[in-house]
Amino acid sequence: MFVTTTERVKFFDTDTMSVVHHSNYIRMFETGRVEFLRALGLSLNEMMSDGILFPIVEVNAKFHAPALFDDLLEIKTIAVSLTKAKMQFRYEIRRQGDEKILAEGSSTNVFTHDGKICRLPEKFFERLAKGLQ
Amino acid sequence: MFVTTTERVKFFDTDTMSVVHHSNYIRMFETGRVEFLRALGLSLNEMMSDGILFPIVEVNAKFHAPALFDDLLEIKTIAVSLTKAKMQFRYEIRRQGDEKILAEGSSTNVFTHDGKICRLPEKFFERLAKGLQ
Amino acid sequence: MFVTTTERVKFFDTDTMSVVHHSNYIRMFETGRVEFLRALGLSLNEMMSDGILFPIVEVNAKFHAPALFDDLLEIKTIAVSLTKAKMQFRYEIRRQGDEKILAEGSSTNVFTHDGKICRLPEKFFERLAKGLQ
Amino acid sequence: MFVTTTERVKFFDTDTMSVVHHSNYIRMFETGRVEFLRALGLSLNEMMSDGILFPIVEVNAKFHAPALFDDLLEIKTIAVSLTKAKMQFRYEIRRQGDEKILAEGSSTNVFTHDGKICRLPEKFFERLAKGLQ
Repeated sequence: MFVTTTERVKFFDTDTMSVVHHSNYIRMFETGRVEFLRALGLSLNEMMSDGILFPIVEVNAKFHAPALFDDLLEIKTIAVSLTKAKMQFRYEIRRQGDEKILAEGSSTNVFTHDGKICRLPEKFFERLAKGLQ
Repeated sequence: MFVTTTERVKFFDTDTMSVVHHSNYIRMFETGRVEFLRALGLSLNEMMSDGILFPIVEVNAKFHAPALFDDLLEIKTIAVSLTKAKMQFRYEIRRQGDEKILAEGSSTNVFTHDGKICRLPEKFFERLAKGLQ
Repeated sequence: MFVTTTERVKFFDTDTMSVVHHSNYIRMFETGRVEFLRALGLSLNEMMSDGILFPIVEVNAKFHAPALFDDLLEIKTIAVSLTKAKMQFRYEIRRQGDEKILAEGSSTNVFTHDGKICRLPEKFFERLAKGLQ
Repeated sequence: MFVTTTERVKFFDTDTMSVVHHSNYIRMFETGRVEFLRALGLSLNEMMSDGILFPIVEVNAKFHAPALFDDLLEIKTIAVSLTKAKMQFRYEIRRQGDEKILAEGSSTNVFTHDGKICRLPEKFFERLAKGLQ
């Protein structure tokens, strides 16, 4: 399963070199991830109310070509592995309607409860697992 | 009393127009404010452990000339009013060693406990009040 | 004339106090302003290709209540004054479908060419002026 | 060669989970990299005036433990490969005076002139090459 989200590039996303600052693609990955989970009916606020956090433990990114101010970007978020122990996603960022990948990457989140690694409770996992279908 | 703090401009502070994005001066005001309070021996972490928060309720800023990537900036934070009900500061931002003000502004914080406006407990106010001397 | 834009609150917009950091409302004001100008057919990229910049010279904001992670916010951007010398806007930010204003403010931009204050060329002003109707 | 830089965690670096947002470690890596190059006498502004840019093409990071508001962090930047074609660095972020690594990662920058990959001019490479000694 994959979910596509659009984001408009803001002035504050760009830098002196007139391109999106690379750290902001990492933020777009998160935006894509949150929307992927929303599509599964998984609300991060609901998880946080139950004391479940989902710290990110790894992120990797390659930057192929720059996005510019006011570009309308498509963030494609693709499930790689969704278990009770972790979530792994891949991301591809393009200009809307373009084939060319501007930036791509991957991330891994684990789950914690009271600051300790935990297994995702069944009620959330049920929904999460559908993301691999 | 005033406190001077220095900050180096980062790439991600600038935008496509090759200047510091105006929202980042608002962030520098906060950096100045935190250092002013540290100079008084006021730790915001200590206040937060006691359940005291200090939401900002107003900020005003004028931007006179741009700061650029890698500039070393001086944030001058000046106490205006420090009571048990609120903190008011003024700020002036210059390039280090320069007379010219690049950006200036003011802010007001109140104090809250459990989400309600409160008066600052004596143990913190004792330290805060010295800021007006 | 006013234009309403929606923005989803991201994790990186919030801080340790679990609310949107106040500097990010200033960024939302800009998002609202860019969308207001787009509604008039004014492309900031087109202005920049003609060497016209639009530095912000003043911003003011009041913060009434916090926005939280994942809130869907409405940014209402209202034209106050749109001349060949400057653009002034007011902003109101609410949760979508809510009456209550969470944050509000105003901003002033001037126009520059080659780093000097200029009057907005007629071809852009024609479109801008419609924003006051 | 390695260079150590310190950074204070700001409110706007943290998020609702009361920890530094992971994208901000990527920004700290850049801060470390800029200071490493400064230690070699390499000014990015001087390179940019000569039309040389240094886009980042890859970044990888692992997050082991959270940094918190007001922590004083040490960013250790270690040269991995510095050639006329690219710069590769590793980074380790710790609380000042602590052994434990909170976040670590690596990055690769290439060099471009007029938007095309180029080899770093000798006058800059002379200084850069000293970073591997």
